[in-house]
Amino acid sequence: MADEVQMVPGNSLITKTPEEGRQLAVKMARLVIKVTQPDAAMRDKLRPDYAEDAGLLIAIGQVVATEFATIATANNYWR
Amino acid sequence: MADEVQMVPGNSLITKTPEEGRQLAVKMARLVIKVTQPDAAMRDKLRPDYAEDAGLLIAIGQVVATEFATIATANNYWR
Amino acid sequence: MADEVQMVPGNSLITKTPEEGRQLAVKMARLVIKVTQPDAAMRDKLRPDYAEDAGLLIAIGQVVATEFATIATANNYWR
Amino acid sequence: MADEVQMVPGNSLITKTPEEGRQLAVKMARLVIKVTQPDAAMRDKLRPDYAEDAGLLIAIGQVVATEFATIATANNYWR
Amino acid sequence: MADEVQMVPGNSLITKTPEEGRQLAVKMARLVIKVTQPDAAMRDKLRPDYAEDAGLLIAIGQVVATEFATIATANNYWR
Amino acid sequence: MADEVQMVPGNSLITKTPEEGRQLAVKMARLVIKVTQPDAAMRDKLRPDYAEDAGLLIAIGQVVATEFATIATANNYWR
Repeated sequence: MADEVQMVPGNSLITKTPEEGRQLAVKMARLVIKVTQPDAAMRDKLRPDYAEDAGLLIAIGQVVATEFATIATANNYWR
Repeated sequence: MADEVQMVPGNSLITKTPEEGRQLAVKMARLVIKVTQPDAAMRDKLRPDYAEDAGLLIAIGQVVATEFATIATANNYWR
Repeated sequence: MADEVQMVPGNSLITKTPEEGRQLAVKMARLVIKVTQPDAAMRDKLRPDYAEDAGLLIAIGQVVATEFATIATANNYWR
Repeated sequence: MADEVQMVPGNSLITKTPEEGRQLAVKMARLVIKVTQPDAAMRDKLRPDYAEDAGLLIAIGQVVATEFATIATANNYWR
Repeated sequence: MADEVQMVPGNSLITKTPEEGRQLAVKMARLVIKVTQPDAAMRDKLRPDYAEDAGLLIAIGQVVATEFATIATANNYWR
Repeated sequence: MADEVQMVPGNSLITKTPEEGRQLAVKMARLVIKVTQPDAAMRDKLRPDYAEDAGLLIAIGQVVATEFATIATANNYWR
């Protein structure tokens, strides 16, 4: 584990807008991958595997949806 | 990441009806794919992979269900 | 996307009974597939792929469970 | 869809105990499969596919966990 | 279904500590497998399939995370 | 099951910050794997399987997202 990686940018789940909340969800999903595979060269090598695979693109969508659910609740849905 | 893509259309989770909430869920699920694979030609190439694969169609259904759960809560279930 | 497809039958998550809520969950899960693959002939062709595959039958069960969680909450669990 | 199948036994999510809630979760998970594949002979044929496959057994566990979360909430966790 | 299997040990979701809640989550995840595949010899045969497969180990982690979410809520997060 | 493994470090879901909550989510996800496969040599052998596989890295992200949702709720989202 690369302990130096910050996994929650800004160390807060609070964002101004849904759009920013969505961006945070995408970043948090990616940072777990960075922590699990800290080797940047390996991550670069793996990138086409998911960016060019319909199943993996959908799987990323599932992770982002799950992270976003948490962030949206934290922000009381920006109501 | 294609930062110019807006991931939450209208920058709000609030919709008038469940039907509009469902449409938003479908759009948000698709926009994550767009952000992860910003190359439109590649996305077009991948489309038949999931539109003609029963497993991937179901996987899309799972993502939409997860996004919709968040949107439905944000709208207090349109009660 | 076949915009003419209504994705939430009755445009409401409110049902009289758990059984009707469950039926709505099944319908909503199917309608996402219809929206993603609007070609009825293709959907007919894909049907045996999931109706005769144990893994896909279970995956459909997962989607229905997720949709039902939302519908059950909307109905305050019919308590 | 076999409309005659009752998908929520007893048409209620309320159970006396966690154990009965768990049994209901298992039944509800199975009844979705029955509705999606109403042919009993086909279901019998598919049974070994998941009862003898570690991945599918775990996938069933995921569906049951999701159904149980809903039932447990409906029962206020039997507190 | 092996009806004699108790699926919720102690017939309660309430535990003294998060650690005990986590142990309950692991047990409940395993007991669904036991109910779906009651033949102990077959389960023993399948064990290496998931204990030596990275993907299945992660899938078990997903089920445990889902069960634990329910148990943690039941215990008001042991706050 | 290696009963001696502590599955919830510190036996608490409460953390000071979102970042620490995220670290706890990652640890809890890993400890389930440790409990299911207590043989350290086997775990070392399996490590490249997921650290070098795009699909498994995403699957780990899904587990962490699910654990984090529970931890974030326990901490009232650090609001």
